Amino acid sequence: MKKIAVKASKPYEVLIEQGLLSECGKLIAKTTGAGFAAIITDDIVDRLYSEKVISSLEAQGIKTVKYVFKNGESSKSSDNLNKIYNFLAENGITRTDLLIALGGGVTGDITGYAAATYLRGVRFVQIPTTLLAQIDSSVGGKTAINLPCGKNLVGAFKQPELVICDPLTLRTLSDETISDGMAEAIKYGMIRSRELFDIIASRNLKNYFEIIDDVIYRCVSIKRDIVENDEFDTGERMLLNFGHTIGHAIESFFNYETYTHGKAVASGMHIMTEQAVKHGDCSSEALDALDSVLRSYDLPLTTEASVTELVPLCSKDKKCESTSINAIVCSDIGKASIRKMPFSDFKAYMES
Amino acid sequence: MKKIAVKASKPYEVLIEQGLLSECGKLIAKTTGAGFAAIITDDIVDRLYSEKVISSLEAQGIKTVKYVFKNGESSKSSDNLNKIYNFLAENGITRTDLLIALGGGVTGDITGYAAATYLRGVRFVQIPTTLLAQIDSSVGGKTAINLPCGKNLVGAFKQPELVICDPLTLRTLSDETISDGMAEAIKYGMIRSRELFDIIASRNLKNYFEIIDDVIYRCVSIKRDIVENDEFDTGERMLLNFGHTIGHAIESFFNYETYTHGKAVASGMHIMTEQAVKHGDCSSEALDALDSVLRSYDLPLTTEASVTELVPLCSKDKKCESTSINAIVCSDIGKASIRKMPFSDFKAYMES
Repeated sequence: MKKIAVKASKPYEVLIEQGLLSECGKLIAKTTGAGFAAIITDDIVDRLYSEKVISSLEAQGIKTVKYVFKNGESSKSSDNLNKIYNFLAENGITRTDLLIALGGGVTGDITGYAAATYLRGVRFVQIPTTLLAQIDSSVGGKTAINLPCGKNLVGAFKQPELVICDPLTLRTLSDETISDGMAEAIKYGMIRSRELFDIIASRNLKNYFEIIDDVIYRCVSIKRDIVENDEFDTGERMLLNFGHTIGHAIESFFNYETYTHGKAVASGMHIMTEQAVKHGDCSSEALDALDSVLRSYDLPLTTEASVTELVPLCSKDKKCESTSINAIVCSDIGKASIRKMPFSDFKAYMES
Repeated sequence: MKKIAVKASKPYEVLIEQGLLSECGKLIAKTTGAGFAAIITDDIVDRLYSEKVISSLEAQGIKTVKYVFKNGESSKSSDNLNKIYNFLAENGITRTDLLIALGGGVTGDITGYAAATYLRGVRFVQIPTTLLAQIDSSVGGKTAINLPCGKNLVGAFKQPELVICDPLTLRTLSDETISDGMAEAIKYGMIRSRELFDIIASRNLKNYFEIIDDVIYRCVSIKRDIVENDEFDTGERMLLNFGHTIGHAIESFFNYETYTHGKAVASGMHIMTEQAVKHGDCSSEALDALDSVLRSYDLPLTTEASVTELVPLCSKDKKCESTSINAIVCSDIGKASIRKMPFSDFKAYMES
């Protein structure tokens, strides 16, 4: 079993091993000592894994209740959140009990947010079951829900007690969902590790599973390093937004329908790096390598939207301060920097 | 001007002076440097004080927008919270901007909670305008909203940038609202300071204003000391619950209609202390002094509900862990202790 210790304001471990789902009861009992847990999951994950998780927990004497919501981004809403709160109240969850997020990013984000706010904070465990959740959203303590007027507008920093990653759960995902996660894995390589980038580039969407444990381990390690330095997202953590400023603009331009988050980030990374090459900030070899790995995971380099159409949408990105923007630029594979610039300069940089 | 420095995870000051409302712009500009503020207030306070606050802010070049909701506890809801979030989004509030809570406890609690969670945290300033808010709810960083199934079930710890108390705002309050706040002031005396208790006891509901600056200063100082030692409410802070376990049971028994929070806490303090006398834990002189000061502020000693009816409701209090309860007992005026006991022992203590 691979272990990554995260020294955030509350320290915790990320555990990675194929088959870990059947061991989760033991691991959770040992780490938390909780006797009562509310499992929060969506209907698809519920059918696949709830039984395994519940029997593992109950074998350790942990009593469980389960709340199931409809799979999908539309469930990351204040309406679903209120239903979760009422479920917790009805089942008498107290501060000594535990929430367990079993599922992908939506489940982790809304469960973590409920855990951050119910009774001003109860403990929670992440059991991420998608690649994106395993390498990214389950680590670092960002939790959120969407508002009708924007994604992730309401949230909290809340560290889990434990993160349990079982890569076997990826076997039930569609190719598209794997692509989606792989875009973020490629991002970690681009901003911090040529070695990780090369490992990812050595496989493709068909045979990625051969390297997946190592990829998850390396991505989480990078995120851990960055988050430990900047838990509350005021500096270095912005590096994680590489490809995301344009990516969010793409998602928004197409009303969050045509492009998944990963596909939008993939195009965002290509577009940013193409501009970096134009400005002499990055070599064309690095861009070629990026494009090649994106293609091998079935990820797009561009979209039907022009850069001129996308740039204005970047200023709505909540990560931009009103008059300036933090652009993340890779000067080579494995090397990224934050460039704070007036929005007008960013526009000029992107449209040249 | 009286100043109290609070050294919480984020340090801030509580400022107390009659007439401070007209100075708030200068104080807020100096402390926060913000250029844009969203004022959150209720319709009653809006009519009385918004104009003064806004003109003071705008004189310092701070642009303002204002959100007004209906006065009353029913506005401390997720419905009103969502309206606040949408207002903040529509007005483009970012992390460099400011929320200002102008009003009583409901306003402070919901504004603080919105500030804790919108964009995972924006800064906020408290301008409490009721006695209860000035001496209690605006200090210490507890923020919350109510759920249909219980009060304050959802919340966060969020410290303000600054608390501005202008005792002149108390002049527009009804006697009942002053009584309500004075119950908490008496509580501070009971748990920590015979001197404060005696100052309060030297006046009554008709002439309390003569001592109010000093009372606010002393109450906030006590709360500051306790909160600095136990910001996240896992130990000493429970002392602040003196009278509250029974008090909450009273509020709940009468469906939050017959008794205000302060009246319920007043009865809670009397009932707890009466039992302490019976068990030899407290002198009857202390109880007599408590009863006398409660009467002079028009606060009740008991209610129509019997202790036998109230005790079962204490176990629903979210402050009780499932099998035990932290009872707060005063052994004398100014001296309180936390007694953790099985719920059955608490029942026996109360019903003997």
